[in-house]
Amino acid sequence: MISVLSGGVGAARLLRALSGEIAPGEINAIVNVGDDLVLHGLTICPDLDTITYTLAGLNNEVLGWGLNGESWRVMEELEALGGASWFRLGDRDLATHLYRSQRIIEGATKTDVTRELCERHGVGVRVLPATNDEIATVFKTEVGRLSFQDYFVRHHYDVKVESITIQGAATASVTKETLDALRNSARIVIAPSNPLISIDPILQLGEIKDILMERREDVIAVSPIINGAALKGPADRLMRDLGYDATCVGVADFYEGLIGSFVIDERDASSASAISSRGIDVHVTTTIMQDPLDAKRLAQAVLT
Amino acid sequence: MISVLSGGVGAARLLRALSGEIAPGEINAIVNVGDDLVLHGLTICPDLDTITYTLAGLNNEVLGWGLNGESWRVMEELEALGGASWFRLGDRDLATHLYRSQRIIEGATKTDVTRELCERHGVGVRVLPATNDEIATVFKTEVGRLSFQDYFVRHHYDVKVESITIQGAATASVTKETLDALRNSARIVIAPSNPLISIDPILQLGEIKDILMERREDVIAVSPIINGAALKGPADRLMRDLGYDATCVGVADFYEGLIGSFVIDERDASSASAISSRGIDVHVTTTIMQDPLDAKRLAQAVLT
Repeated sequence: MISVLSGGVGAARLLRALSGEIAPGEINAIVNVGDDLVLHGLTICPDLDTITYTLAGLNNEVLGWGLNGESWRVMEELEALGGASWFRLGDRDLATHLYRSQRIIEGATKTDVTRELCERHGVGVRVLPATNDEIATVFKTEVGRLSFQDYFVRHHYDVKVESITIQGAATASVTKETLDALRNSARIVIAPSNPLISIDPILQLGEIKDILMERREDVIAVSPIINGAALKGPADRLMRDLGYDATCVGVADFYEGLIGSFVIDERDASSASAISSRGIDVHVTTTIMQDPLDAKRLAQAVLT
Repeated sequence: MISVLSGGVGAARLLRALSGEIAPGEINAIVNVGDDLVLHGLTICPDLDTITYTLAGLNNEVLGWGLNGESWRVMEELEALGGASWFRLGDRDLATHLYRSQRIIEGATKTDVTRELCERHGVGVRVLPATNDEIATVFKTEVGRLSFQDYFVRHHYDVKVESITIQGAATASVTKETLDALRNSARIVIAPSNPLISIDPILQLGEIKDILMERREDVIAVSPIINGAALKGPADRLMRDLGYDATCVGVADFYEGLIGSFVIDERDASSASAISSRGIDVHVTTTIMQDPLDAKRLAQAVLT
C-alpha cells in the first residue's frame, strides 16, 4: 500500500498513472483541504474534486479543472443577477457541491462524502481529506490578507506574498483514515504539487510531519519545479517570495528531514549532486506527465 | 398605497392583476416566509420567489412553479450522485438561491436580497418578507412531525394533520419595511392564499394581528376556497383537519375580527348572508383568475 500527499492537478495525474501500475485499492490519496471554501452556502473542496474527477476520467482536459461535458447555465444566470460569479462553478460540478453540502448538514464528514462520491464515480483509489476540520490557507500580501481563492482566482496569484498561514492547522485533527493510511503504507509519496500551499497544509496537521520524519527513508517526493519554473500555478513565484530557491533544490530544501528520495526532471539533472549532498537519494526522469507514457514512467520511478 | 398579505401562486396572480390597476410602486406584498428552508446549504424562499418571478413575467406557467425556460442539468447530476433531489431546483432557479445564500453570508437580510432581486428583474411592486428572522411552519401529523417541505413536497400533503405550529413566530420581529407598509396602506388585502399555512405565519408575527384588528374596516380578504374546494394545494383538507368548515364561510370564521370585507366567488353566492351575519361586508365576483379578464375583475373588486 502507498499513500500520496496530494494537491490538485499534478497529484491527480500522478495518482491516475499510479493506478495503472498497482491496484487502485492499494493507493491512498491524502488530500489538501486548505483551499476549501464556503461560497453561496456551498462547501467546495477543489483538490478533493480535482482528484476524484480525474480518477473517474471525468475531468475537463480543456479547462484543466472541473468536469468534462460541463455547462454553465447557473453561472450565466447568477452573473445576470449580479451575483458573485468570479469562482466558476459548472452545472455538473454544482451537483457535487450541493450533494456534499447537504450531506455535511446531515452530519456527514468530508471523509464520508468523498467516499460516497468516489463510490458513485467508480473511483478505486481511497481519496482521503487530510482532516475533517476546517483549515484555511491565508496569504499576507502586498495588498493585504487574502483567502486562498481571493489570492488564486481573483488576483490570479499576481501579488507579492509575505507569508502564508494555515489557519486552524494547529488544532485540526488528522482523520483516523489518514493516519492509518500513512502508518500502513510501505511508501509515502509527496506528489508534484505546490509545496507551500498544497503540501504544507497537510504537513502542518497534527502528527503528519512526525510520521514523515520517522519514516523518512520510505518518503519520496516529486519536484513540481522543473528548470526553475512551475508547470502550473504560482509555486516558483511563491518559493522566491518566501525565500526559497525556485528550483528543484529549493523544493528539496523545503522537504529536508522529511524525505529519503527525490524525483527531479531530466532538465534538472545537473542539480542531482546538490540534492544528494543533503543526504537525499535522487532519481532523474521525465516528470512532466504530458502524455500517458511519461506519466507511466514517473509512476514507475516513484514505485521502484 | 395598499398592502397584500401573500402566500405563493394565488397571491402572485392577484398582485400581478393589481399592478395592472394601480402603480406597482403603490403595492406592497407582505410575504410568508414560513416555508423557507435551507437545503444543500442554500437558503430557499419559495413564496418570495414565486411572487418575484410572477411579477417579473418569468414564472413557469406549465409547471405552476419556478422559472420559465428552465433546465435541470444540476438536478439530473445530483440525482445521478444519489443526492437529495426530491425538492426540484432548476438551473435558473438555483442561481437565485446561490445569489441569496451568498448575500446572506455577507450580512444581507432577506429584505435586502428580495429588493435586489426585484431590481434586477424590474419588479416595481415592493416585495417584502414579513420577517427577516427564521420561522418554520411545522406539522404534527398522523405520521409524526413534518417540516413544511416534508409535508408539502415529500408527502404531497396526503397525511392527516393534527396541528400546525409556526416555530419562532412568537419571538421573530416584523421588519420595519413591513410595519411601515401596513401602517401607511389605505387598504390591507389578504390574498387568496392558504389561510393556515400561508397567511397565518404572517398573522402570528409580532404586532401584525393587532394592526389588522385595529384597522379591520380597511382589511379585505379574498376566499381561497370556492365551492368547498381549494383551487390549488391542501387548504380545504387542512381546514377540515383543523376543525374549520372547508368553505368560504370557514375562511371568514378563521379571519373573524381581522377583516371588514370578504370577497367570495359567484358559486358561493348563497353563503353571502352567513358571512354578512358575522358583521363582514361581502363582495361576490369571479375569484378564479383563470384568464386576465377575471383577474382584472377580482383586482378591481379588491380595490373598490
